[in-house]
Amino acid sequence: MQSDGKSLSKQERPIVGITMGDPSGIGPELSMRVLADEAVAAICHPVVFGDWSVLEQVALRCGWPKPSSVVSLDGLKNLDHPVSVVDCGAIEADQVEPGRVSAVCGRAAFEYIRAAIDCALAGDIAAIATAPIHKEAIRLAGVPYPGHTELFTELTKAKRSCMMLASDKLIVSFVTCHTGLIDVPSNINPQRVQDVIELTAQAVRRIKGSEPKIAVLGLNPHAGEHGLFGTKEEQRLIEPAIQSVRCRNVDVHGPLVPDAAFLAQHRNQYDAFVCMYHDQGHIPFKMLAFDTGVNITLGLPIIRVSVDHGTAFDIAWQGKANPQSMIQAVSWSAALAKGNPVLL
Amino acid sequence: MQSDGKSLSKQERPIVGITMGDPSGIGPELSMRVLADEAVAAICHPVVFGDWSVLEQVALRCGWPKPSSVVSLDGLKNLDHPVSVVDCGAIEADQVEPGRVSAVCGRAAFEYIRAAIDCALAGDIAAIATAPIHKEAIRLAGVPYPGHTELFTELTKAKRSCMMLASDKLIVSFVTCHTGLIDVPSNINPQRVQDVIELTAQAVRRIKGSEPKIAVLGLNPHAGEHGLFGTKEEQRLIEPAIQSVRCRNVDVHGPLVPDAAFLAQHRNQYDAFVCMYHDQGHIPFKMLAFDTGVNITLGLPIIRVSVDHGTAFDIAWQGKANPQSMIQAVSWSAALAKGNPVLL
Repeated sequence: MQSDGKSLSKQERPIVGITMGDPSGIGPELSMRVLADEAVAAICHPVVFGDWSVLEQVALRCGWPKPSSVVSLDGLKNLDHPVSVVDCGAIEADQVEPGRVSAVCGRAAFEYIRAAIDCALAGDIAAIATAPIHKEAIRLAGVPYPGHTELFTELTKAKRSCMMLASDKLIVSFVTCHTGLIDVPSNINPQRVQDVIELTAQAVRRIKGSEPKIAVLGLNPHAGEHGLFGTKEEQRLIEPAIQSVRCRNVDVHGPLVPDAAFLAQHRNQYDAFVCMYHDQGHIPFKMLAFDTGVNITLGLPIIRVSVDHGTAFDIAWQGKANPQSMIQAVSWSAALAKGNPVLL
Repeated sequence: MQSDGKSLSKQERPIVGITMGDPSGIGPELSMRVLADEAVAAICHPVVFGDWSVLEQVALRCGWPKPSSVVSLDGLKNLDHPVSVVDCGAIEADQVEPGRVSAVCGRAAFEYIRAAIDCALAGDIAAIATAPIHKEAIRLAGVPYPGHTELFTELTKAKRSCMMLASDKLIVSFVTCHTGLIDVPSNINPQRVQDVIELTAQAVRRIKGSEPKIAVLGLNPHAGEHGLFGTKEEQRLIEPAIQSVRCRNVDVHGPLVPDAAFLAQHRNQYDAFVCMYHDQGHIPFKMLAFDTGVNITLGLPIIRVSVDHGTAFDIAWQGKANPQSMIQAVSWSAALAKGNPVLL
């Protein structure tokens, strides 16, 4: 593996690490579909962080050729050429039952992520695209993070981060995300809202290559209707953050009435929407961009893009899973690593 | 006005009361557009509960003819023919400034509703279609209800009720509605969820003329992901209600993952979606059916349908407001009053 990450990220074809995700889900087959994809090969070197024996077994079941080259995690450091698979040695194929939640699979999925993050922080890979993990398996494995976003934030020691969903139809980012609805209001504060607006503005500049116009949503029905619903969260927590970022010459508006924000007239007017909680942004995003969207973690010292779907246990290891979202995630990773706008 | 409501509701052209809404909004002009609409006249007798002087003034400003006939609230009882306007004498035109929130206008809007409800309960009109009120004006007037739904529930002494939004694209109903997000979880309980599922099933039977298939959404991201997010509201509050209604042979499913519920594949599969809070259902509904949807209050002893938009103060009294949603509301009122399916 090449050692100079900074020069890598400027190369025509950056190395993009792909974490294999939960071994019992569709991650292994998606990883191999990406390795075999010619359009992907034209823009980057994909390398899967996973388990060789699992990939071999899935390839056998699907009637596909095995990936072309493999290296162990230990052998990675002194490698002078890109490989297809980094074998993390986290699990054996016979420990995996396709479609079943288990602690061993949750642990393995975590190990792939940790290995890829180490490589990215060391500059050995230019970006990470993640296949889906299963949140319950991760929890069973004793990994104390509800999702990829929180896990990447912690492992990269990022000071602030947030989730963004992006597609050519809509871009949304989140003040709170994998948070029970009951805990949403207490997790919103002006500093957090300001951080997410700033991270969103930075990211959209990079994605679109121009100064963004950003909308921030209210928390309550009708954005609180001047304090009639809720406890004036719009006035107390959201408006001060908007004012604060606006003073730094970011073109930011709101708080918008949430149920009107995603009408076509507003979608055409704004480059991105800062949402207060998971389903406020996920419901419209999935309606508009299911299967074509990607999930980007903002604020990290590394680039991380993910598929927009789950482990799809019901069809795992059958070769049926649609690889488009995973291919999108790798393509976005490569474009962001090269510093190119993705959406113009 | 005819006195036998029951026979009225079976007539070819039932009398539909239209409450004029906030006098300083677009309600007066929408009311007159409905009175002048030939398609409306073909299916019902519309009668506006409002203030004659306001309608006269708005007609003058817009260059429209005045409504054709008027009767006072007192004169209503012994009337033997339908009229266009019931003058409630709540406000004078010179007290109204178009586009301005005021207590007098909030009070007037409330009086139109009270008068129409009295007539509906007495059987003098077969249904009520409501033009938009302004929630802040209502509050300034000291009317202690956050919206039409709560107001109709109280004034008709309904034991249980809920809001439904309906269009040919999507039908959603609400366990909580005009509630601050912070208060949503504490307002959900199994009995309430069960009530809303039952009311929804009854309504969809009437709207579609067939046994409905109903989906109930979860409260938390990923419907709680087996208790990982939130406080197991799905298991504690929603699943027992679903079980309970299913035992009565209603075809009800869930709790669905909220952000996947409104994908086309699910919209085609279910006749209606029971939502836990305002924006969970309003965001997808407005994206799919803006300007064509209606708002129905379920569980009342009378029929009440409303427009799906607000008072639009910015364009009030200019004759510009699009009457389609109001016409839809009157059409739905008339069809429901006649006992006809609206959507087949």
